Amino acid sequence: MTESASNKQFVEELTDQGDDFARWYNEVVRKAQLADYAPVRGCMVIRPYGFGIWENMQRLLDDRIRATGHQNAYFPLLIPESLLQLEAEHVEGFAPQVAWVTHGGDEKLEERLAIRPTSEAIIGHMYSRWIESYRDLPLLLNQWCNVMRWEKVTRLFLRTTEFLWQEGHTAHATAAECQEEVLRILEMYRDFAESDLALPVYVGRKSEAEKFAGAEMTYSIEALMRDGKALQAGTSHHLGQHFAKVFDITYQDEAGVRQHVWQTSWGVTTRLIGAIVMTHGDDQGLRLPPRIAPIQAVVVPIWRKDAERAQALEFVERVRLAAGGVRLHVDARDQYTPGWKYNEYELRGVPLRLEVGPRDIAQGSVLSVRRDTRAKEPIRIEALAARLPQLLDEVQRDLYRSARAFRDDSTATATSVEELERHFSERRGFVAMPWDDDPAVEARIKQRTGATLRCVPLDQRPFEHIAKDGRSVALFARAY
Amino acid sequence: MTESASNKQFVEELTDQGDDFARWYNEVVRKAQLADYAPVRGCMVIRPYGFGIWENMQRLLDDRIRATGHQNAYFPLLIPESLLQLEAEHVEGFAPQVAWVTHGGDEKLEERLAIRPTSEAIIGHMYSRWIESYRDLPLLLNQWCNVMRWEKVTRLFLRTTEFLWQEGHTAHATAAECQEEVLRILEMYRDFAESDLALPVYVGRKSEAEKFAGAEMTYSIEALMRDGKALQAGTSHHLGQHFAKVFDITYQDEAGVRQHVWQTSWGVTTRLIGAIVMTHGDDQGLRLPPRIAPIQAVVVPIWRKDAERAQALEFVERVRLAAGGVRLHVDARDQYTPGWKYNEYELRGVPLRLEVGPRDIAQGSVLSVRRDTRAKEPIRIEALAARLPQLLDEVQRDLYRSARAFRDDSTATATSVEELERHFSERRGFVAMPWDDDPAVEARIKQRTGATLRCVPLDQRPFEHIAKDGRSVALFARAY
Repeated sequence: MTESASNKQFVEELTDQGDDFARWYNEVVRKAQLADYAPVRGCMVIRPYGFGIWENMQRLLDDRIRATGHQNAYFPLLIPESLLQLEAEHVEGFAPQVAWVTHGGDEKLEERLAIRPTSEAIIGHMYSRWIESYRDLPLLLNQWCNVMRWEKVTRLFLRTTEFLWQEGHTAHATAAECQEEVLRILEMYRDFAESDLALPVYVGRKSEAEKFAGAEMTYSIEALMRDGKALQAGTSHHLGQHFAKVFDITYQDEAGVRQHVWQTSWGVTTRLIGAIVMTHGDDQGLRLPPRIAPIQAVVVPIWRKDAERAQALEFVERVRLAAGGVRLHVDARDQYTPGWKYNEYELRGVPLRLEVGPRDIAQGSVLSVRRDTRAKEPIRIEALAARLPQLLDEVQRDLYRSARAFRDDSTATATSVEELERHFSERRGFVAMPWDDDPAVEARIKQRTGATLRCVPLDQRPFEHIAKDGRSVALFARAY
Repeated sequence: MTESASNKQFVEELTDQGDDFARWYNEVVRKAQLADYAPVRGCMVIRPYGFGIWENMQRLLDDRIRATGHQNAYFPLLIPESLLQLEAEHVEGFAPQVAWVTHGGDEKLEERLAIRPTSEAIIGHMYSRWIESYRDLPLLLNQWCNVMRWEKVTRLFLRTTEFLWQEGHTAHATAAECQEEVLRILEMYRDFAESDLALPVYVGRKSEAEKFAGAEMTYSIEALMRDGKALQAGTSHHLGQHFAKVFDITYQDEAGVRQHVWQTSWGVTTRLIGAIVMTHGDDQGLRLPPRIAPIQAVVVPIWRKDAERAQALEFVERVRLAAGGVRLHVDARDQYTPGWKYNEYELRGVPLRLEVGPRDIAQGSVLSVRRDTRAKEPIRIEALAARLPQLLDEVQRDLYRSARAFRDDSTATATSVEELERHFSERRGFVAMPWDDDPAVEARIKQRTGATLRCVPLDQRPFEHIAKDGRSVALFARAY
């Protein structure tokens, strides 16, 4: 059959992860129709299947952002150059990456406008107009939007010139409340990554060298991809009073005294889609965590004779009705064989496949096949509403456990820089090492091994056995 | 009391609609904290309360877009100049309004990049790569995003350099299916405007002069503001094969023959927020339709003595629990008087106010006050879950009816150009007139009266009495 032949080719075309991980990644992102290259260098098109993942993430994270008291707003795309330049470290960090608008229609602009690489400057400007009294604090805003950073080397989702993100920006009366917010958001991100995306993460603070341009302190969650490289999956910044001072954001306290506010900012981006691909994917393609999968279960009806077709489609309708709130997709296309479809939905990472053949119909059941383990299980139609959500929860949990085991197995320890360097000459993964906060040593490690300091974990307990003299342990890895 | 004094001032500051409608509009948008000016000319910040309206609109319209078989995706912000220039009418229409990116970091770009004024060009480019066979059709995509058009004269929400919108882009095998989609979307917009936004609209086709740059035919919904000016509230374009031919978007039909696709595009924008303000607002401020109001009912506890305070707050908690799915906000702030709060939530257009004073508590009820009619009604706490949704439906219905009556009263007829010109020398509103599709007459009317041809209504029945010789009737109005 033509379809089988083209199907075979289709699957054979996917490079094995072990042969060339980067190539596997690009192939799976494009074959699964998550994204495509745009005609502008470094920009991408997020196709409906990829965007469906993002929409599910947005919904889950937005609920968490609201539940912690934040409101959404929208700030302008364009930032006057003079505003961006107010905070010295900030502009130094971002100016090399800014896309500049110089003309509106035929008219040359008097001042260049930056397409936002991030919105601290424009939001700082507005906050200085809105905040007057301690009663206006805390001010807790978030926005979902596009941002742009001119990148030299790009890869779909992981590093693109334009990307989508949410950026939270808050202002507080005291340093203590500000720090509380920074850690509240960090914990929100951790739980979102682990519970919703099945991404195990280390949670910690960045070094001076790796912190956000303009921040007092940056915290992050750090995930591990299946090729052993780390990926920063979200950041929460303590901005101190840096922006408050240059943008003159002050409030009158209860005693009538003018004070500068304390600020945070924090964000996660569409690169999380890349993190999911590289954390859970295998040689057959994607494996999507059910909570963010656009399709949670695909129903594939099977018939050999035309007489069986009508019966199969009728049964499929009953399955659809019986499946409750599960995000179900029925693929009853005639032009593809069931085998072709199995491979396609494996490639696309759909967590469950429900096969409906003549024998299944005779027994009043479907044959469920898990994408992650290939475990098969017949489910009677009356049991679908109860069993499907359970199965999806099991897949979600097992994807997390498997990624967690890989991450833990890939976390080594070193008690000296020499040992750490030896590790990275042979292997990847995380290396935990007692740390003195010495920027010179950090720079040397980066230069000699390519590994960077990913974070100093807030929870030091797992590393107590190597910590000495009260020093903290830091995690190093090569990273995306 | 200081609060009463400042409150009085607060309300008195709002200009009456009749004195200066444009000024009233700007004041209410800013005082109600819907939006604020940004430091870039013509750009706005959408504040949480205004953005909450947009989010509610998005949710309601997105559900409709999905229910009609469309999927969301995301296309890049930047479009190479060469792509934008492929369709001659399109570039002629939009080039004068394009914001151009000329530099990425320190590097001057080889080709200028347009910030999308609309996405036909970039999407046409991608569709030519994605569409191969009739099996790929129809292709039904939508995106929610920001766009930019360099405007000379701007007004918050109504005409801003950057705005938010959704833009649908579809490709079809035949002209008939394409036309069906154009009208399906038009009807979706009409129902969304009338049912969800309480905006009565005329539905029709545009003239050649008023159609979208690059379209074969443009259809629109047209609303009427309380100052008698019309506002285009949504458009649905039949693009024919214009873009398919220049972007080479073809498919192989069932007979194996290459054909060009037929396309549509359609959109509504954040100007709908302005339409709601100007359709429903009165001298006290906004009146928001309940379906899109961020707060549907505000609870104001009232106490005179401290002893009553705890009791009031306890009762308010019971009200909150009893209100079910209604979007409720409790304002228990100490520093403002109840009267101050009443005025504030009237200004902000909250559909219902629930007063909770000592007498209400004694009776186990709240006193509900409608924003639109000021009608008062005590509601026992056990009845809240049933009565509040009814009341909100009544407000929604009455806002629509009232706007509809105003629109109908403001629709005059004319049987000659002279009569039409006489009308506009004295009044505003819509004028219906039999129409020959004569561009010269249309241009003369515009030049002499400032009125433009808003649409030729698809439903001609209301105008049958003035239609003669089988001619259609067209609607003219001065417009935003």
